[in-house]
Amino acid sequence: MRFFSDNAAAAHPKVIEAIIASNRLDTAYDGDEWSQALDGAFSELFETAVRAFWVTTGTAANCLALAALCPPYRAILCHRDAHIEVDEAGAPGFFTGGAKLVLLDGPGAKVTPAMAAAACDAIRDDVHQVQPAAISITNATEYGLVYRAAEVAELGEFAKSRGLALHMDGARFANALATTGDSPADATWRAGVDALSFGFVKNGGLNAEVLILFRPELADEVAVRRKRAGHLLSKGRMMGAQILAMLKDGLWLDNARAGNAAAQVLAKAAGDRLVYPVEANELFVRMTDPEADALRAQGFDFYEWGPGQLRFVTSWDSDQDAVEQLAAAIAAL
Amino acid sequence: MRFFSDNAAAAHPKVIEAIIASNRLDTAYDGDEWSQALDGAFSELFETAVRAFWVTTGTAANCLALAALCPPYRAILCHRDAHIEVDEAGAPGFFTGGAKLVLLDGPGAKVTPAMAAAACDAIRDDVHQVQPAAISITNATEYGLVYRAAEVAELGEFAKSRGLALHMDGARFANALATTGDSPADATWRAGVDALSFGFVKNGGLNAEVLILFRPELADEVAVRRKRAGHLLSKGRMMGAQILAMLKDGLWLDNARAGNAAAQVLAKAAGDRLVYPVEANELFVRMTDPEADALRAQGFDFYEWGPGQLRFVTSWDSDQDAVEQLAAAIAAL
Amino acid sequence: MRFFSDNAAAAHPKVIEAIIASNRLDTAYDGDEWSQALDGAFSELFETAVRAFWVTTGTAANCLALAALCPPYRAILCHRDAHIEVDEAGAPGFFTGGAKLVLLDGPGAKVTPAMAAAACDAIRDDVHQVQPAAISITNATEYGLVYRAAEVAELGEFAKSRGLALHMDGARFANALATTGDSPADATWRAGVDALSFGFVKNGGLNAEVLILFRPELADEVAVRRKRAGHLLSKGRMMGAQILAMLKDGLWLDNARAGNAAAQVLAKAAGDRLVYPVEANELFVRMTDPEADALRAQGFDFYEWGPGQLRFVTSWDSDQDAVEQLAAAIAAL
Amino acid sequence: MRFFSDNAAAAHPKVIEAIIASNRLDTAYDGDEWSQALDGAFSELFETAVRAFWVTTGTAANCLALAALCPPYRAILCHRDAHIEVDEAGAPGFFTGGAKLVLLDGPGAKVTPAMAAAACDAIRDDVHQVQPAAISITNATEYGLVYRAAEVAELGEFAKSRGLALHMDGARFANALATTGDSPADATWRAGVDALSFGFVKNGGLNAEVLILFRPELADEVAVRRKRAGHLLSKGRMMGAQILAMLKDGLWLDNARAGNAAAQVLAKAAGDRLVYPVEANELFVRMTDPEADALRAQGFDFYEWGPGQLRFVTSWDSDQDAVEQLAAAIAAL
Repeated sequence: MRFFSDNAAAAHPKVIEAIIASNRLDTAYDGDEWSQALDGAFSELFETAVRAFWVTTGTAANCLALAALCPPYRAILCHRDAHIEVDEAGAPGFFTGGAKLVLLDGPGAKVTPAMAAAACDAIRDDVHQVQPAAISITNATEYGLVYRAAEVAELGEFAKSRGLALHMDGARFANALATTGDSPADATWRAGVDALSFGFVKNGGLNAEVLILFRPELADEVAVRRKRAGHLLSKGRMMGAQILAMLKDGLWLDNARAGNAAAQVLAKAAGDRLVYPVEANELFVRMTDPEADALRAQGFDFYEWGPGQLRFVTSWDSDQDAVEQLAAAIAAL
Repeated sequence: MRFFSDNAAAAHPKVIEAIIASNRLDTAYDGDEWSQALDGAFSELFETAVRAFWVTTGTAANCLALAALCPPYRAILCHRDAHIEVDEAGAPGFFTGGAKLVLLDGPGAKVTPAMAAAACDAIRDDVHQVQPAAISITNATEYGLVYRAAEVAELGEFAKSRGLALHMDGARFANALATTGDSPADATWRAGVDALSFGFVKNGGLNAEVLILFRPELADEVAVRRKRAGHLLSKGRMMGAQILAMLKDGLWLDNARAGNAAAQVLAKAAGDRLVYPVEANELFVRMTDPEADALRAQGFDFYEWGPGQLRFVTSWDSDQDAVEQLAAAIAAL
Repeated sequence: MRFFSDNAAAAHPKVIEAIIASNRLDTAYDGDEWSQALDGAFSELFETAVRAFWVTTGTAANCLALAALCPPYRAILCHRDAHIEVDEAGAPGFFTGGAKLVLLDGPGAKVTPAMAAAACDAIRDDVHQVQPAAISITNATEYGLVYRAAEVAELGEFAKSRGLALHMDGARFANALATTGDSPADATWRAGVDALSFGFVKNGGLNAEVLILFRPELADEVAVRRKRAGHLLSKGRMMGAQILAMLKDGLWLDNARAGNAAAQVLAKAAGDRLVYPVEANELFVRMTDPEADALRAQGFDFYEWGPGQLRFVTSWDSDQDAVEQLAAAIAAL
Repeated sequence: MRFFSDNAAAAHPKVIEAIIASNRLDTAYDGDEWSQALDGAFSELFETAVRAFWVTTGTAANCLALAALCPPYRAILCHRDAHIEVDEAGAPGFFTGGAKLVLLDGPGAKVTPAMAAAACDAIRDDVHQVQPAAISITNATEYGLVYRAAEVAELGEFAKSRGLALHMDGARFANALATTGDSPADATWRAGVDALSFGFVKNGGLNAEVLILFRPELADEVAVRRKRAGHLLSKGRMMGAQILAMLKDGLWLDNARAGNAAAQVLAKAAGDRLVYPVEANELFVRMTDPEADALRAQGFDFYEWGPGQLRFVTSWDSDQDAVEQLAAAIAAL
């Protein structure tokens, strides 16, 4: 019973159906009808004109966005635990041509305007020190916390006041919105977000993420950078089709709700063991090594996440029985 | 009736079946059983120990290979019409960190040892001029010509004599082998090839190409560069599974034979109009504008490829009726 | 008697004096009075507000300019024989982050609007091909030809019409102006030049070149890139001081006239052997191997520049006796 | 009376003399007799065969070394206060092509094996996290502390045990050796250092630093990278000559001793106000704002270095009277 990662979840049947339906001799790259429909579909979802680019990984979405928002000789502020810092093999340095990540501390991988301001104020304004150009936040965070629209807006205002761009890594954007109930628009561009990595792969997609640009003037550059990074697939129709399937009738949001609900079942069982409140589909649970071993012995899989701390992740397809069993097992420890 | 590009062909039903069969909660990235089986499967196919990396595009396969074979401050020799020079948006410069492409001339996009030698000899051996590190050839070439194993071996010997690595862009490697009858081993490592971009997408795959390293010591670096470029997909099982499906019972070769056979039907009809002999699945045909218009009026789609020259591409799924009709239409001009 | 290269010439005594005069405990980097005076001095010389940055090499001046004018994913048009292509070890690729050089052909390393237009027209306007962003020309060219202001203006108009920036590598800018009599302003910004690498090292300077920006809005970026490339010297006063010495009373132009005059003495002797008209301080002379040997036997040093062709370069400090002797020796062949 | 920075010190008269003596028509780049003599001179000084490359800045020396020691996809461990992190405008990211700096904490900008080990141990050994390739230390540190040879050797052993290269930023290497009395060899390669940025500019040079490679097999790559970064000056003789002048009769060590001695005079006066022991030519002194103002009112210049803390730097040419006056003024506070 796997609670390793939502990365490992299956693709939703409707996604597979959509791919099959699009599997025919057609136009190459993103010239097909499905890919061409994305700008419109996301503009409707976000209630404003956006540009939408499919890519196959969150790393690609994040780093294409960062490359468009930060020149090689400037810096991006992010949390010390941000995925772009910790788990993308230095991809931001590669895509930007050597821009620097300035790391912020704080609980639960959340960034606040005060943290960002302190980091900016510590940088001398001269040619010897690398000046910041952007802030990147993750919503939900790497520790499963969410930013409410109002929190994002505070960061957006701060960013604007310092001339910084704002990027949101939304690998679990759906899970965050399922919790906050904010509209996609309120949680992003209305709050000052310039670019969003909108995650689908962890949430029922097969291999498509979408980079949303709320500043359409960046689209030409991003289109070229996507090709240049080898991310313009020949058969884009299978990308476009699966994303449209995820958007149809709010499947993306339904899936996220299912994942979050499973997490709440576990959260209830974990009680005081929780390191952070469970606001999305990840749980960080204090546990001794023997306790962890006991769970493993019962057939549960999960990651250790630092000493004495385990991570459990649910997803849209978390097996309800397995979830109940794990909840019972945790409660019984 | 589309003869634009094999990029636009459908995925083979067995590929789709394999993806469906692998769609389950599993291990993330390339830890799944299918991805883990690739090294073995390709080592068997190539009759030597190789390392195999799936990626989603030929651009990614080519440029990961080039980055591993050429440092930022050296050069790669390739034909002026090579895909890496013409159609990859400068990706070699991005992946290598600024290495230079030195362009060779010659008919049909084929490279010979003499051409490569002349280019090398024109480079002064000092720190002011960029020294070559690698040669990249395309098989079949961008004009549909093939390299026989013996021809590759001549290039391989030349490369070795100058301390250069040899890369083969095999976007249509299957089509080439279907024509030459050479074994995969003879056409590559036995002939001195260090790395091969083995194409599947144009030949029945959905979105998987494979980078084959004949120098396994490069594998650690390539693994990191793949991740760093955002090309390590979360659900690698759908990559691994489709490739295994293509390898099973020689599907890749059967598909290539089908595409080549369709091209031969057209070639016979085109006769003297052919710019190059048809050795794979591409035809370049001399035609006046009115003639081209006449074909279009009959519902055929294709690219103009320079003045007075059209390109037709067949694929594994070329409709036999459409091929016959086009052949007849060309013959009737 | 050395006619190898003006790179090897001595520094002018006034340059040395200026360095000595500035050698004192002072402000670091470019905070000193001499460096701070450069913007003003060059703004006066060019009759418009410019920003001036000292660097130690032409390669640095050229490539900082190109990095500011061309993003990593676009291309720079230049002549096949341009110094940036041939003799800078791939520095444009390094500084720009992988931008491409698109090479133009034509006699004497001169670029014309027609050549540039043909190159642009051959590039498909899509994401697969690298789109041009800038043109770089060298004045005087690598073969000692000059661009008159009107010729530059034609290129400037063309560049503007295509949305391209225009860079001038002026390693021998002084020699060019000494011949054309054009004003610095007419030969550059009034003709559409955006950035000029103004050479001093070949013309009496010790180790200072100057990058002139006619678009001051690029200055902040260039200042950072200069530091980031390790080109912001601690004791900038020795850079500023030597440049001011070169500007004082037109020393730069006097030196260039002296070098050009020496070249004319040789040109007269070479007569029909000249490959190109001598318009600056370089001569390319047809000569058989025995003839070249005969000159060497008389103590003259020079480079072979292709088969049957020698290059002689004069400078501000060319010894008049040596020049006369060489002229006589050539005439006597 | 300036105590800002040794960057601002004058060049030593013998350096100026050497430059004047080398100012003649000669061979370009580093083909001159002085530059050619450097490998030999430094091999003698270091008692082993080394390769020596002049460059004009410490940033260039550091980052050329790092680029040779760390591929783009790996990391360099250094102190949070290291010059390469804080004051080089992101140059390591530029020269390496995006490698990461992993920052270590600890007093006085000193790195210990324990700190480096902890940082390494925190990195998961997989393709998602950036693996370390090198350690860079500064000797004397940015806070004026020195590493004894035995301390370097401990780091060298640690580095070797983890397969890491070791770089030393020796902007004030002379000051360090003047204090420790260690031989150049003991303080570097015998202790496991692979590359040293040997500083001269702060210590009486005009504009020459030297990158010393204790692994000569890296020299070809470094030579190309130097050119490619625009750091191969045309008139290298003025670089070679000034360095030879600094080496002659131990001028570099005498200069460092003079600077250190001046610092000791101030250190005695500062007493308990010192934040760190004074082991080279820099003092960090606790002082209130009114006290700092009082010093400024007496004509002393210096930097604030964090709240309530001033930095004073002496050099080879620190005026003895000014030093005595400053010592008296501090003592009188």
